[in-house]
Amino acid sequence: MVHNFSAGPSILPQEVLNEASEAIKNFDNLNLSLIEISHRSKNFVAVMDEAVALVKKLLKLPEGYSVIFLQGGASLQFTMLAQNLMKNNAGRAAYLDTGVWANKAIKEAKLFGEVEVVGSSADKNYNFIPKGYATPTNVDYFHCTSNNTIFGTQMHAFPKVEAPLVCDMSSDIFCREMDYTQFDLIYAGAQKNMGPAGATLVIVKDEILGKSGRVIPTMLDYTTHIKKESMFNTPPVFAVYVSMLTLRWLDKNGGLSWIEARNRKKADLIYNEIDRNSLFFGTAEKEDRSLMNATFLLKDEAAHKEAFDKMWKEAGISGLNGHRDVGGYRASIYNAMPVESVQVLVDVLKDFEQKHA
Amino acid sequence: MVHNFSAGPSILPQEVLNEASEAIKNFDNLNLSLIEISHRSKNFVAVMDEAVALVKKLLKLPEGYSVIFLQGGASLQFTMLAQNLMKNNAGRAAYLDTGVWANKAIKEAKLFGEVEVVGSSADKNYNFIPKGYATPTNVDYFHCTSNNTIFGTQMHAFPKVEAPLVCDMSSDIFCREMDYTQFDLIYAGAQKNMGPAGATLVIVKDEILGKSGRVIPTMLDYTTHIKKESMFNTPPVFAVYVSMLTLRWLDKNGGLSWIEARNRKKADLIYNEIDRNSLFFGTAEKEDRSLMNATFLLKDEAAHKEAFDKMWKEAGISGLNGHRDVGGYRASIYNAMPVESVQVLVDVLKDFEQKHA
Repeated sequence: MVHNFSAGPSILPQEVLNEASEAIKNFDNLNLSLIEISHRSKNFVAVMDEAVALVKKLLKLPEGYSVIFLQGGASLQFTMLAQNLMKNNAGRAAYLDTGVWANKAIKEAKLFGEVEVVGSSADKNYNFIPKGYATPTNVDYFHCTSNNTIFGTQMHAFPKVEAPLVCDMSSDIFCREMDYTQFDLIYAGAQKNMGPAGATLVIVKDEILGKSGRVIPTMLDYTTHIKKESMFNTPPVFAVYVSMLTLRWLDKNGGLSWIEARNRKKADLIYNEIDRNSLFFGTAEKEDRSLMNATFLLKDEAAHKEAFDKMWKEAGISGLNGHRDVGGYRASIYNAMPVESVQVLVDVLKDFEQKHA
Repeated sequence: MVHNFSAGPSILPQEVLNEASEAIKNFDNLNLSLIEISHRSKNFVAVMDEAVALVKKLLKLPEGYSVIFLQGGASLQFTMLAQNLMKNNAGRAAYLDTGVWANKAIKEAKLFGEVEVVGSSADKNYNFIPKGYATPTNVDYFHCTSNNTIFGTQMHAFPKVEAPLVCDMSSDIFCREMDYTQFDLIYAGAQKNMGPAGATLVIVKDEILGKSGRVIPTMLDYTTHIKKESMFNTPPVFAVYVSMLTLRWLDKNGGLSWIEARNRKKADLIYNEIDRNSLFFGTAEKEDRSLMNATFLLKDEAAHKEAFDKMWKEAGISGLNGHRDVGGYRASIYNAMPVESVQVLVDVLKDFEQKHA
């Protein structure tokens, strides 16, 4: 068995993979593959409808929110959201700078208006979430990134702002219970907690749209996809289908309260061991630690790296190497990761200390 | 057995579907699914590299062309190509209007400059390809659509133009031998001849880029994806993989000369029967008929539609209904469609005539 700690694309529930594999051969007993039927067939429309309904149910979204599935990843959202929300004349937005992806979002927004960075943790290599910043009132929206995979930090509270609150939840969507109505626009690439790469979830409060006064290319206009229920053009059929299966798995098992409890158990397991173990240390500030990505380093890399790498690989662990911006190790423990796999990693850490401390 | 005449997403080779299904469970004997590993793993980078190499080999592309896999379908290309190629000041492009998709491309281009429609078959519900039009010399590019799925027409020759020649080949890419170096930009959604929905192939002659003087959002700039070899952000892993498998199938069987001969055989079979059969007629001008989509109508729909629909459905045929803009029937006989399935349809047409003429 492989214990898959990949940062993304990442682990999905085994039953979802089995069902997806079958659907490639024979979908809905049509004797046709899921990927060779019309996206406008009643069979696929039912998939899209169920995916949208599950998102609304799991996040407890009231009337007035639209849920769409797009393509292009969060990276395309960086420009789409700015084009849709930033006023055409003297547009202005506030961004919280919590890492590499927040920076990419800031760069794209600057093409469409003025960007005020209200807080940044760049000076400490993004090992914490800025707090106590002033939230400007005269902006078209406020943008933040809820989880920073590279740096292992996560926002555990969100600012109260007068402007629409926009959040990139690519790496922690569906990981916890929260009041999701505090957000006006949520977007997330599928490939961490939702499904395979190739679909992007966008949740938008309808009332914030249509106010920019900007001419937007059809495919980049949220209203295009809302009006056509994500079928303006051919959607990424397979990625939407597997996302739907994953959401169904989440719902069936107990939804966000169930997954949050499981995620906290996994996070406690790994963080407690990192803090206890004399050979390792965590890189993120404790109060801002991520439920999804635990980043840690060896205290003496020169002495121990080779032996530790050998040990975790022999234990069947994969994808544990950290991002080059932080180095060391990153245990990505997304929704689908079982507690048992985290325990295997914890056991390796303990065992390594016993042999090498 | 189902004979899948769907217009798209559409039939793929059975061996490709089998291999894709297996990769969802266990890819490259990693004991991991294709869709839960990093796109930067050597296993997936090899997939992307092979897909690119196969495109270059099959189309006999010389040095100087880049091949990238994007997301968003041809619809996103409508705005991307205009943003990348249309001059920022007094931009001007020529478009050939051959149907619904050409019109969508024209609409998006108008947001970035002046569009001259050099020829149109709109007056005859797009049942032919305009010819003999003057090709303007003072434009940033010339855009055409090689195959029109809805109307069953296909360009069998392309104009010699001084400007870069841009072609939407979404529904006939890889269907025939041709000098592909006559084009400067080719784009195609995967979901007809190449793979599942969710990937878009773009082939671009490098020298035409970087001349617009326009500021382009990062994700919409072809040079972003060329520089990062389609890995600027997470690519649509599954759609690229299945496209690679389909290209491998095409190459192994003999490439474009093999598939063109097979496609001509299938097209001859169906068109000969439509022309011979006293109860049906083809909708497209004969000289412009598509190798990919044969559109035809009953001469007496009121008398025969119900019985004909019953008969083809009983024969295991699916996806034969025409698009609402043309009505009647559309036999989409893309690359993966075997001759045997076309013969089944031809036999149904003959049988129907015998019983109802």
